[in-house]
Amino acid sequence: MSTHRKIRMGMIGGGLSSFIGIVHRIAAYIGEEYTLVGGAFDTDYDKALEFAKKLELDPNRTYPNIDTFIEKELELPAEERIEAVVVVTPNFLHYPMAKQLIEAGFNVICEKPVTNTAAEAVELEELVAKHKVVFALTHTYTGYPMVRQMKAMIAEGAIGEIQKVDAQYYQGWINPVIHDKEKRASVWRLDPAKAGQSCCMGDIGVHAFNMVEYTTGLKTAKVLSDLNTLYEDNPLDIDGTAMLRFDNGVRGLVRASQIATAEENNLRIAVYGTKGSLKWEQENPNYLYHLQEGEPMHVLKPGHEYNSEFAAISTKMAPGHPEGIFDSMANIYLGTAKAIRGEEYIDGAFPTIRDGVRGMKFIEAVLASTADGNTWTEIDD
Amino acid sequence: MSTHRKIRMGMIGGGLSSFIGIVHRIAAYIGEEYTLVGGAFDTDYDKALEFAKKLELDPNRTYPNIDTFIEKELELPAEERIEAVVVVTPNFLHYPMAKQLIEAGFNVICEKPVTNTAAEAVELEELVAKHKVVFALTHTYTGYPMVRQMKAMIAEGAIGEIQKVDAQYYQGWINPVIHDKEKRASVWRLDPAKAGQSCCMGDIGVHAFNMVEYTTGLKTAKVLSDLNTLYEDNPLDIDGTAMLRFDNGVRGLVRASQIATAEENNLRIAVYGTKGSLKWEQENPNYLYHLQEGEPMHVLKPGHEYNSEFAAISTKMAPGHPEGIFDSMANIYLGTAKAIRGEEYIDGAFPTIRDGVRGMKFIEAVLASTADGNTWTEIDD
Amino acid sequence: MSTHRKIRMGMIGGGLSSFIGIVHRIAAYIGEEYTLVGGAFDTDYDKALEFAKKLELDPNRTYPNIDTFIEKELELPAEERIEAVVVVTPNFLHYPMAKQLIEAGFNVICEKPVTNTAAEAVELEELVAKHKVVFALTHTYTGYPMVRQMKAMIAEGAIGEIQKVDAQYYQGWINPVIHDKEKRASVWRLDPAKAGQSCCMGDIGVHAFNMVEYTTGLKTAKVLSDLNTLYEDNPLDIDGTAMLRFDNGVRGLVRASQIATAEENNLRIAVYGTKGSLKWEQENPNYLYHLQEGEPMHVLKPGHEYNSEFAAISTKMAPGHPEGIFDSMANIYLGTAKAIRGEEYIDGAFPTIRDGVRGMKFIEAVLASTADGNTWTEIDD
Amino acid sequence: MSTHRKIRMGMIGGGLSSFIGIVHRIAAYIGEEYTLVGGAFDTDYDKALEFAKKLELDPNRTYPNIDTFIEKELELPAEERIEAVVVVTPNFLHYPMAKQLIEAGFNVICEKPVTNTAAEAVELEELVAKHKVVFALTHTYTGYPMVRQMKAMIAEGAIGEIQKVDAQYYQGWINPVIHDKEKRASVWRLDPAKAGQSCCMGDIGVHAFNMVEYTTGLKTAKVLSDLNTLYEDNPLDIDGTAMLRFDNGVRGLVRASQIATAEENNLRIAVYGTKGSLKWEQENPNYLYHLQEGEPMHVLKPGHEYNSEFAAISTKMAPGHPEGIFDSMANIYLGTAKAIRGEEYIDGAFPTIRDGVRGMKFIEAVLASTADGNTWTEIDD
Repeated sequence: MSTHRKIRMGMIGGGLSSFIGIVHRIAAYIGEEYTLVGGAFDTDYDKALEFAKKLELDPNRTYPNIDTFIEKELELPAEERIEAVVVVTPNFLHYPMAKQLIEAGFNVICEKPVTNTAAEAVELEELVAKHKVVFALTHTYTGYPMVRQMKAMIAEGAIGEIQKVDAQYYQGWINPVIHDKEKRASVWRLDPAKAGQSCCMGDIGVHAFNMVEYTTGLKTAKVLSDLNTLYEDNPLDIDGTAMLRFDNGVRGLVRASQIATAEENNLRIAVYGTKGSLKWEQENPNYLYHLQEGEPMHVLKPGHEYNSEFAAISTKMAPGHPEGIFDSMANIYLGTAKAIRGEEYIDGAFPTIRDGVRGMKFIEAVLASTADGNTWTEIDD
Repeated sequence: MSTHRKIRMGMIGGGLSSFIGIVHRIAAYIGEEYTLVGGAFDTDYDKALEFAKKLELDPNRTYPNIDTFIEKELELPAEERIEAVVVVTPNFLHYPMAKQLIEAGFNVICEKPVTNTAAEAVELEELVAKHKVVFALTHTYTGYPMVRQMKAMIAEGAIGEIQKVDAQYYQGWINPVIHDKEKRASVWRLDPAKAGQSCCMGDIGVHAFNMVEYTTGLKTAKVLSDLNTLYEDNPLDIDGTAMLRFDNGVRGLVRASQIATAEENNLRIAVYGTKGSLKWEQENPNYLYHLQEGEPMHVLKPGHEYNSEFAAISTKMAPGHPEGIFDSMANIYLGTAKAIRGEEYIDGAFPTIRDGVRGMKFIEAVLASTADGNTWTEIDD
Repeated sequence: MSTHRKIRMGMIGGGLSSFIGIVHRIAAYIGEEYTLVGGAFDTDYDKALEFAKKLELDPNRTYPNIDTFIEKELELPAEERIEAVVVVTPNFLHYPMAKQLIEAGFNVICEKPVTNTAAEAVELEELVAKHKVVFALTHTYTGYPMVRQMKAMIAEGAIGEIQKVDAQYYQGWINPVIHDKEKRASVWRLDPAKAGQSCCMGDIGVHAFNMVEYTTGLKTAKVLSDLNTLYEDNPLDIDGTAMLRFDNGVRGLVRASQIATAEENNLRIAVYGTKGSLKWEQENPNYLYHLQEGEPMHVLKPGHEYNSEFAAISTKMAPGHPEGIFDSMANIYLGTAKAIRGEEYIDGAFPTIRDGVRGMKFIEAVLASTADGNTWTEIDD
Repeated sequence: MSTHRKIRMGMIGGGLSSFIGIVHRIAAYIGEEYTLVGGAFDTDYDKALEFAKKLELDPNRTYPNIDTFIEKELELPAEERIEAVVVVTPNFLHYPMAKQLIEAGFNVICEKPVTNTAAEAVELEELVAKHKVVFALTHTYTGYPMVRQMKAMIAEGAIGEIQKVDAQYYQGWINPVIHDKEKRASVWRLDPAKAGQSCCMGDIGVHAFNMVEYTTGLKTAKVLSDLNTLYEDNPLDIDGTAMLRFDNGVRGLVRASQIATAEENNLRIAVYGTKGSLKWEQENPNYLYHLQEGEPMHVLKPGHEYNSEFAAISTKMAPGHPEGIFDSMANIYLGTAKAIRGEEYIDGAFPTIRDGVRGMKFIEAVLASTADGNTWTEIDD
């Protein structure tokens, strides 16, 4: 490992006023596999420089915009050039910036949502393949060790054939603003120009959907949804249910809401199989519940030898010292680092553009289903 | 209270081989308001007499069948006659026997399901009104003090206007038999002749539905369901989801399954309102979770003065000594006793034929919705 | 089973104003093994008669006092005579009344505390042996199925050799009255004349102690305690800790408090062995936690085939329908019924005068230890 | 904030084979307030250089030992010199190395245990005062936001006057090795030369003790302990209980064990006051339970406005995205950074040498108490 070097990381967005930037930086720091060397942190260049100074970054690699970023970095010799670029801009910019970066040959670590439309996601998928770059989509929850344990157990057949899946993501944050006409008109997440086609399904329903396909390996063939905007003048869904039919005929359910008053990030998934079941909840992420007919319920926790290799490499501490959401994100960064270095990694070590394509297609399908009067709507590959 | 006498109770079914009979007797004993004086306990009259002997009941009031029961009891003077008859026969007999009893002027305490069809339930409702008898339907879960507290708090406006309801009843009991053709063919609950039109929705989905209307006071206007029989040769649903639209436009969800492997009686309900939310789970029935925006979650328990009168009269012990399912059923018997005696009682003190009508209409509507290709199906009053 | 008859039960105390009487009656009703036929329910005979009328009991067997009760019942032929007498009088009367009843040849079911002193308990133990009666002491918590499962698993060696025991019983009920001199002076539980030698240890610490010896089968050889009266003018302990040394050298701990503000009946026990551990909590009594090195935690629940016979016969419902404290007490009544009938029963099916002797010796030892400056104090057999 | 610079951090120990080094580095990274510039990472200098290369540190500031570290760093101008040194060596070296560093004028962040004896801790306390350096002792659990919320609420009088404290730290890790004579002889934690005077109390009991004094602000005046070595040939305690008497007469309890089979890091604390109570558990650190007489239990979580400023500044995410043990440690690093910069900070923002002195005195007192036959032993200031 003597030639092992940290991956040179850049960042688009994520400056002083960003909430999400620090989340990504911490995730990168935790594994000690990345070093932040530059970026286009802010549309206000002075603020970008101030941010760079605070983090003691080289001001010469603090760029005023993504174009300059790409131009200047490409002028550097490969062994100095930024290798991975984190995209943490406002949502509607994910697609154009990711596209530019991929086309310039950079590996990309992109915040969710990956694009504004499914078509754009498909386009990115083709570009990723064409330019042979690594593309990681930070569906954070897939980094939790017990989610990975769930995926590994299902793959190994621990619960037999899957016969029912139920996933939920309930929040209540919009309740205080949704009932007042003025207030709801000023929420960016309810503005299609900024938030895209969907609020609830686009922001959180897609997480529940991703958990379903991520942990089970099943592919959703069609959906029937009932989305709710609550008020006629509100253009975007803030609550909804989607019935799923997987391509093997098994039924699933994605339930999401932002009017589940005072819920925080109540994401949970239950997968029921012929031999047993697995249940997990995001707010208590270090517990995985394994139910089996006629057996005491088993409660699995990270750090134990009974866990799969995938869970094991996603855990830093011994059992009983809880890790959290930053550690989950860090696991995604670790997986991405392996891919960037061309090392072997376990399938699912980081969500890819494939997850992005599936998610966008899901969003568009549930929107179409409701628009069509709650009818079954297919999701192609 | 010097003239207060115990209510003379009879029982149809419930003999030596019955599981459910003892549940009802215990419920009746607990409140000390009923005394079991006779019945038609078994189709095998010798066994009925043996049962009567075991319980030290009068063999003269142990009847060979319901016809004799009615005939002989009506010959007795009113002050000796059985006042309330518990119907705990096999399901398909609930309707004809209840009908006979009502027409003969007896008050009836009937196990669930109330009838085989919605039309029969409507007929019973008319007969109950005509004959001015008390009719209690033992939707057991409505007797839990914290369910009653939930109902009372919602009625008082504690959570504001309801904007979302989600109820679940997940079991796994059918998993061990459903995957084998021979086995599943021999399950009485999967035989329409014995089990009626529906297995999962009829047996447990209707409980979740009842909890929804019971606690919220909302009325379901239409449903869109996706029921699942799993195998083509299996005639009855064993899993399913129903989207609800209440008559005020609010959305709800009833999720039920018998293939949720190794789940026991995982019935839970969450009601989200503009001011807060309430959540309850049947397997930990002494906890009620009250969520409010920006407030610590409140956990309510029985026996405290902060509870409503309805919860208070449904609790026998001081806080911290858990009561269970028999105590819940006993609360329904206590409420019924008040009605039989003509005393005042709190609305919801026992489920009535109205609950039976609503439940049967729900079952028929979800069956129709799935049969019609998962379309919205109305439920009339 | 044709000659099987219900046990004729009498009651001393337990009338209209009694809280505990109904608890015992419900426990007796639930198993359908007892029938209440008479008693001396109240020191006010008119009230006793009113009570008898309410329960529709024979007024001729409603006696003005225990002396008449014994005299008149003994005049009856054996096949009519009351067979088991429940003693639910104020605490200080348990001993004299139990003594009278035993000496008259009655089986006794006695509320806790069994006596005022250890010497009295020893005397009762001798009388029970001499008169060959059944004596049940209602340490209610021993009736929970998961407590019995714990006892059975430990006996079978499921957790290996015990190496540490920790039991707690925390309540907060005295907090609202203890800090005011007037108020605390008027609490009967703080009055030695009514409550006996101890408040906290006598009332609840002894439950924790009983759970320790009941579940483990270990015998406590000595204790070192630190009891707390909080105020100098308060004569009785309301909080305290006792270190235990069992006769095999293993250490244990009994922690009890009535100033654990807002705790309800937070009784819990953890038993750690060389091969695994078991933990149980009274307020969630249907869960038993089984920990083993390097294994997922197992959560056991009642009604499953993996449970011991002892737990199985202590459960009425299928898994997932929670039973509670009344069902626990009912299990003790069921065990006692077997003993009264001379049938075989599992050891521990009901707490006996032995539990009473051990408990009283524990109470006296912890009082002595604190009085002697927190020193080790032996408990003889 | 334009002149704000990252704190230059060094590390003694913590190299390739260290488990604890990465924990401290992550804690330092998370807040973006420190930059690791050098250290004496390993007694094997080649490995130290390999480690430095892996982290891309300056090999010139990778020193072969602490003497060189101090010598060379002191030669550097103040604005380049390492400002804070993390001591993560084997336990017995904490004291001599911390002493050297303090005397050389470095701020120190030291792993637990701070020293081998109380006298050494007192000496360090004097040196810290004399040399006016910042000394942080990483009692990690004090960094959890809900622990800090607990401290803040108690200080504000939310639970009134404290009347009972009960803290526990139960682990089971030693069970697999303790019962075999060979194995236990080879455990370094059971070797006084390496582990110091105590195993269980020194390693984890002191955490529980620290939590007690940290959250309550009470000072322990004396202890009575019962420590357990389990085997005669085992020199150090692996289990024990300590009764506490605070200087205001209130009672407390510290219970610790390493033979609590299959427990992981079951640290919990309950503080009972005249107006209410607070309870917290390390393995579910994002929940704080607030009990009040006659009120529903309140469950507090991080990220809400109802929390104190102290909890607020110790939380990065919005409610419902769980943070973990690394975030807790990071909060201690953030507090220490403020002290190093001379900025104001909330009392308790990081544990200091005072915590170290108190902890060592506690350990020596519980050892003395058991040695003296379980007698009260005073702890001076």
